[in-house]
Amino acid sequence: MTVQTSPAVATPHIAPAIAISQRTRPTPFHDRVMAAGAKAFTVYNHMLLPTVFESVESDYWHLRTHVQVWDVSAERQIALHGPDALRLAQLMTPRDLTKLTIGRCMYAPLVDEDGGIVNDPIITRVDDDTVWVSIADSDVLLWAKGLARGFGLDVAISEPDVFPLAVQGPRADDLMARVFGEAVHDIRFYRWAHLEFEGHPMIVARSGWSRQGGFEIYVDRRDLAEPLWDALMDAGGDLFVRAGCPNLIERIESGLLSYGNDMTRETTIFEAGLDRFVNIDGDHDYLARDAIAAQRAAGTERMLRGIRFDADWVPGCITPWTVSAIAPPANDESDACRDGGAIGFITSAAHSPRLGCGVAAAMVDIAFAETGTPVIVTLPSGAVADGTVIDWPMA
Amino acid sequence: MTVQTSPAVATPHIAPAIAISQRTRPTPFHDRVMAAGAKAFTVYNHMLLPTVFESVESDYWHLRTHVQVWDVSAERQIALHGPDALRLAQLMTPRDLTKLTIGRCMYAPLVDEDGGIVNDPIITRVDDDTVWVSIADSDVLLWAKGLARGFGLDVAISEPDVFPLAVQGPRADDLMARVFGEAVHDIRFYRWAHLEFEGHPMIVARSGWSRQGGFEIYVDRRDLAEPLWDALMDAGGDLFVRAGCPNLIERIESGLLSYGNDMTRETTIFEAGLDRFVNIDGDHDYLARDAIAAQRAAGTERMLRGIRFDADWVPGCITPWTVSAIAPPANDESDACRDGGAIGFITSAAHSPRLGCGVAAAMVDIAFAETGTPVIVTLPSGAVADGTVIDWPMA
Repeated sequence: MTVQTSPAVATPHIAPAIAISQRTRPTPFHDRVMAAGAKAFTVYNHMLLPTVFESVESDYWHLRTHVQVWDVSAERQIALHGPDALRLAQLMTPRDLTKLTIGRCMYAPLVDEDGGIVNDPIITRVDDDTVWVSIADSDVLLWAKGLARGFGLDVAISEPDVFPLAVQGPRADDLMARVFGEAVHDIRFYRWAHLEFEGHPMIVARSGWSRQGGFEIYVDRRDLAEPLWDALMDAGGDLFVRAGCPNLIERIESGLLSYGNDMTRETTIFEAGLDRFVNIDGDHDYLARDAIAAQRAAGTERMLRGIRFDADWVPGCITPWTVSAIAPPANDESDACRDGGAIGFITSAAHSPRLGCGVAAAMVDIAFAETGTPVIVTLPSGAVADGTVIDWPMA
Repeated sequence: MTVQTSPAVATPHIAPAIAISQRTRPTPFHDRVMAAGAKAFTVYNHMLLPTVFESVESDYWHLRTHVQVWDVSAERQIALHGPDALRLAQLMTPRDLTKLTIGRCMYAPLVDEDGGIVNDPIITRVDDDTVWVSIADSDVLLWAKGLARGFGLDVAISEPDVFPLAVQGPRADDLMARVFGEAVHDIRFYRWAHLEFEGHPMIVARSGWSRQGGFEIYVDRRDLAEPLWDALMDAGGDLFVRAGCPNLIERIESGLLSYGNDMTRETTIFEAGLDRFVNIDGDHDYLARDAIAAQRAAGTERMLRGIRFDADWVPGCITPWTVSAIAPPANDESDACRDGGAIGFITSAAHSPRLGCGVAAAMVDIAFAETGTPVIVTLPSGAVADGTVIDWPMA
């Protein structure tokens, strides 16, 4: 039982052209990104986000080895400003924000009153009464506005002209120091500093959607976007700097969740493994308290895990492939595995050239979630692939 | 002063590939749409929406002449259900929904408390305490949930598995009658009926995002999606039925607004010309009442108009091109036109093969909005094009 697909037919996730209009909001870096040879885009927060330059695999190796500059303008900032800014931010997330002092940022899943995940942003404390919510792909602005209006909060909510540019990879510190000075080395993980580019201070945070290290620069002047891009490229020739983008393989291996792929409003923080990032029992006032307490009391029946395929290739995953168990677990009291029934589904998949096999994230029945559990994955073509449950993040 | 571009370089709006994942939600018709030769897609409400089959121009002529089947699953339904469903819908729109009886649907712009447009859906009354909000590209679900939670309304809000399929074009009645029976002829504009397909009743409305006539079928069973697609295609061979999609040229000529292109939260209903669809002074209770009253009192300084280019081609418009006036208007008391200053910007543009010229929608200073006003449009390349303000919709 091996996957019966070849690379040629195995990329249904990249095929037709993308139609671009003002609605899909080209970023201030768009001309540079196109000139750098972006081969594919997605739309994320109604904005273009490149997904491939040379190839997903080549981009992956380069990211792990050198340094890349990413146009992640699509990580839109929702600015909350006013006396109730922090109160509103806190309402939206079970993570305790009382320690979110100026100079810090926090990964803080947003959860609605039913306990469903609405987004998983990084929240940055910009000043006393301003926070920026750096969002994944859903219109948090509307959610925040609706809550603020309904609860009568004193807070202005906007999407400012801020265009994050990420510098990611093992040589990110070296490159950033050449453009922003040695002060970049002092920025700790999930902290930020105001650093100047062409005399203009910008928020520079040690963060980013990879596990290869690096920074996110919150570019808040459109006219500085191309000069900053060019400065980074010019400064990094000997570091082999390249244009890049969030990489499917790297982020799956690293266990970085993609909202809309690995979790949706139908997913709980326990299922997504995000309960470790929050403070369910704190004294802070958040909307989802009752729902999350009920979820915890009910227990979690499924969870996100890694899958390693025996096959050396998997196609792009655009629909949830069925995961089935080979045998019931020891002391099984459930019916989950009877008749080869489904015990879960794949949420994201890619070929890992480093591990030499297909890798995936999957939401699986808790009874089959143990590392080492053998599974069978059925692809839309009808082909089946042997696989094994592995840790997520992957080794 | 003519546009110095050729068709070959004039389509920057269709170039790289689109990256597809589960986050971009392929529709139940996706395999059929691909098999029908979709050449480009956009992402709309986090879902794939095809934009081109043969070519935008060929699709245009076919739509005006024959009949097309459109996968517009991306027009997501936000279902409001419960005692406060209608109250919540009414809060969101200045259109008076008291006449929204079962069997009717209404185009009803949603406006936030600041008077900005949040979406421009069709709202359908499904039963006594259920409405469906058929949305343009923004997460109205989050807006509705935030308001409902904040105001303590008794209403459940969800995005059900409903996948609209549009049948558009002058032969739409003929084709629909063959599949759904002669009853389709009795459905009036912006009315709906429950009609059966394979024994299952579906909402069939006379509506759609073209001015060529037709229907939208609210397919609420995933397993019936492909059978319905096939039935329409099989029944329409002699009607030259084809797969199609919302057509850029047709919708610009027809004056159909695209949320995110022609209007955003920065746009008022007066500027967009949507005040004629609403009931500002009614007794109904809507959020935007004060903001809209203030906007009306302040007066409108700009409005959406049509532009006809002298040139026989315009490239795709992915950024707002500057519109400048040639001369100040008679009795001008403003400074708008001094030194060739901008008096507006293009929001959407296409080449009209029927009119033999470029056509566009533009937001222009009210002093220059009169039909026949000559303008100059500056393209990103630096090229300039002569044009004229014309009526929108266009003749």
